[in-house]
Amino acid sequence: MNIDDMVMISIDDHVVEPPDLFEKYFPKSLRDQAPKLTANPRNPDVQAWMFQGVVVGSSGLNAVASWPKEEWGMDPTGYAEMRPGIYDMDLRVRDMDANGTLAATLFATFPGFAGTHLASLPDKKLSLAACKAFNDWVVGEVSSTYPGRFIPLGIIPFFDVDESVKEIERLDAMGVRSISIPETPYGVGEGYPPFKSGYWDPIFKACADRNIVLSLHIGGGISLVKRAEGFDLDDMMILTPLISTIAATDVMLSGAIKKFPDLKFAMSEGGVGWVPPWLDRLERHVTNQEWTGRTFLPKGMTPTDAWRKNFLACYITEPSALSNRDRLGIDTIAWECDYPHSDSTWPNSPEMLMTELTASNCTDAEIDKITHENVARFFDWDPFKHIPREQATVGALRAKATDVDTSETSKHEYRRRYELANS
Amino acid sequence: MNIDDMVMISIDDHVVEPPDLFEKYFPKSLRDQAPKLTANPRNPDVQAWMFQGVVVGSSGLNAVASWPKEEWGMDPTGYAEMRPGIYDMDLRVRDMDANGTLAATLFATFPGFAGTHLASLPDKKLSLAACKAFNDWVVGEVSSTYPGRFIPLGIIPFFDVDESVKEIERLDAMGVRSISIPETPYGVGEGYPPFKSGYWDPIFKACADRNIVLSLHIGGGISLVKRAEGFDLDDMMILTPLISTIAATDVMLSGAIKKFPDLKFAMSEGGVGWVPPWLDRLERHVTNQEWTGRTFLPKGMTPTDAWRKNFLACYITEPSALSNRDRLGIDTIAWECDYPHSDSTWPNSPEMLMTELTASNCTDAEIDKITHENVARFFDWDPFKHIPREQATVGALRAKATDVDTSETSKHEYRRRYELANS
Repeated sequence: MNIDDMVMISIDDHVVEPPDLFEKYFPKSLRDQAPKLTANPRNPDVQAWMFQGVVVGSSGLNAVASWPKEEWGMDPTGYAEMRPGIYDMDLRVRDMDANGTLAATLFATFPGFAGTHLASLPDKKLSLAACKAFNDWVVGEVSSTYPGRFIPLGIIPFFDVDESVKEIERLDAMGVRSISIPETPYGVGEGYPPFKSGYWDPIFKACADRNIVLSLHIGGGISLVKRAEGFDLDDMMILTPLISTIAATDVMLSGAIKKFPDLKFAMSEGGVGWVPPWLDRLERHVTNQEWTGRTFLPKGMTPTDAWRKNFLACYITEPSALSNRDRLGIDTIAWECDYPHSDSTWPNSPEMLMTELTASNCTDAEIDKITHENVARFFDWDPFKHIPREQATVGALRAKATDVDTSETSKHEYRRRYELANS
Repeated sequence: MNIDDMVMISIDDHVVEPPDLFEKYFPKSLRDQAPKLTANPRNPDVQAWMFQGVVVGSSGLNAVASWPKEEWGMDPTGYAEMRPGIYDMDLRVRDMDANGTLAATLFATFPGFAGTHLASLPDKKLSLAACKAFNDWVVGEVSSTYPGRFIPLGIIPFFDVDESVKEIERLDAMGVRSISIPETPYGVGEGYPPFKSGYWDPIFKACADRNIVLSLHIGGGISLVKRAEGFDLDDMMILTPLISTIAATDVMLSGAIKKFPDLKFAMSEGGVGWVPPWLDRLERHVTNQEWTGRTFLPKGMTPTDAWRKNFLACYITEPSALSNRDRLGIDTIAWECDYPHSDSTWPNSPEMLMTELTASNCTDAEIDKITHENVARFFDWDPFKHIPREQATVGALRAKATDVDTSETSKHEYRRRYELANS
């Protein structure tokens, strides 16, 4: 297959919420308590969201798209310095065109990837309002404004199970295809009950009943791995994928799949290579360690069966990932772009992806599965409903975006342009 | 290759110390404070080692060889109930023969795999004496009593760096080929400094200068992964391999390989499959995240180069491990038996290993590397110095052991035999 003929869907991109989101969607009766843009106390030159008295969901290393490497870092940034495609959806779609990305899921920044920031704040009524406002925007507005470009993915007020179920029902009516929940709830703030506790069952049921995928993006789980004092950022970045193993183990052992056999979990950010050794170990465990008496899957179902039915994993760039594709099952592998985070391959994703697909001797059929068919099936979302395949390819999308400047651009230059536009 | 023609060396077997070890090797002047066998407070029917006022290094799930599965568990056990090959080295060698295992490293039980139990006790003078006594037995006595059957592996009093270096010098004179150190020192007891702290440098230097391999067996590191309240034993068992990723990341980022380019690390118990995605991520990290400015390897050396020069990993049973053998490098893969722990494949290791080697289409040359050549090179220990190859094969060893009963035998039956023999 030629690079231009690929159809690419990312199940892990990120969005920084536009400045007017809460003006538009926060309830009028609570408007004076809505999240507000203010000078960031850590760097008054940039803006930050202030909500319930604290700064929430700052951007930094998670908004580096097109910055020169020497400007990357953990310092907070703001709208003026960011590539506008990060928060302006008209420009996002053009950035996606320039990368040949047909469609993406958008994980939240201000509320946390899975609403975890909101769950950690004291006033749950306000947090619920912010959660719904984000969903109104990302599921209600964005997905319908750009048909076929965003798989609708929402968040829930998981600190309140009843409200979560109501929100799932509301989002379902809006066409949501996935809900992002914390990958390891006991790692969020003071700790929420784990998947096996029963706490999550009404949420699981609501999603299973509606064929809504649960997306488990690595986030709060990072706090579960205790590091030595004075460890480096590099250390944490390298170890991040471990959290997918932990989260998937939690799901597998929780009994959730036994209770809700059709429940689906999309694992984001952890890559794919951890799955084969983990499945090998699980398979050995259920036979060799049968003395523990644990049964966590439907009768007759092996961990590998469960993986292939109930899970989807994705990778950004991972040259060795596909050597073991038969072990995972080719139908369980997807791709992610991770725009605009530092791990992203944007704007060179098609080239990097194709290099790895070719090196692994993937057939055209396998390429189609990995790049979009598996996602379409798993999320029950047809990419060609609004955009015919011939207009959905890397080549067709990039042809529309030849004027999009993807070159390295400094924060300073972005700020100059921003101030010019807003003056 | 025929199963009978394999030559198998395990770099991860375990020993329960024989009851007379400290009578023989603890200093006479401290004899009244030596570890003593006593009734286990948790189960007075079995014995336990009492040392410095507490029970140290109990056996349980780590001594299950030949027990029926329904008797496996976390309850403490004692000599009377164990398969005698676990603590009696004459019988151990016969158990190895029956499994076709030519040679093995023996990790300690009472002192901890890496002496971590000793390091957690208050009287360091006594702990040092126990450490040396164990080494006198395992390196001094066992390795010379059974030439060619045990790769000499010792422990050090890592709570005291000067004494550790002295012990390495002493062990070197005794022919030691490996030292077991804690895989994540900051996870031991109150926490020892991590590899990057400089604390370990004299120990690293002493080993690098003598071409002594550092063995990093998963142990205390398990405490680094925070689990949800009320988690199951299954959960921990499935996640154990993550610790090898953490330990190897610590080594890689510590700068140890930059300071001591010939330092060698053997990773035990974590399997092999975690290495390819981890190397993929490291390679991407050092180019994509170069902004962090971290340099941790000698100039011009990539993480993959370092892996292939400075590391060896091993697996017990892991059917998908070898699909990616070219990514790790075939020279970096070894095998372990894990006798007498619950993960072990004893007494069917040759059959299980060959099934996986065949399924992965390994050539005879690759099989020889994985089963013994890589270990011989990495540990600089010639298996054929004392035992010619034709007497070292699975077939030859098993032919000597046709009378060894490897069938399932209950604790009760072992106790009956033990009491008969000791009455």
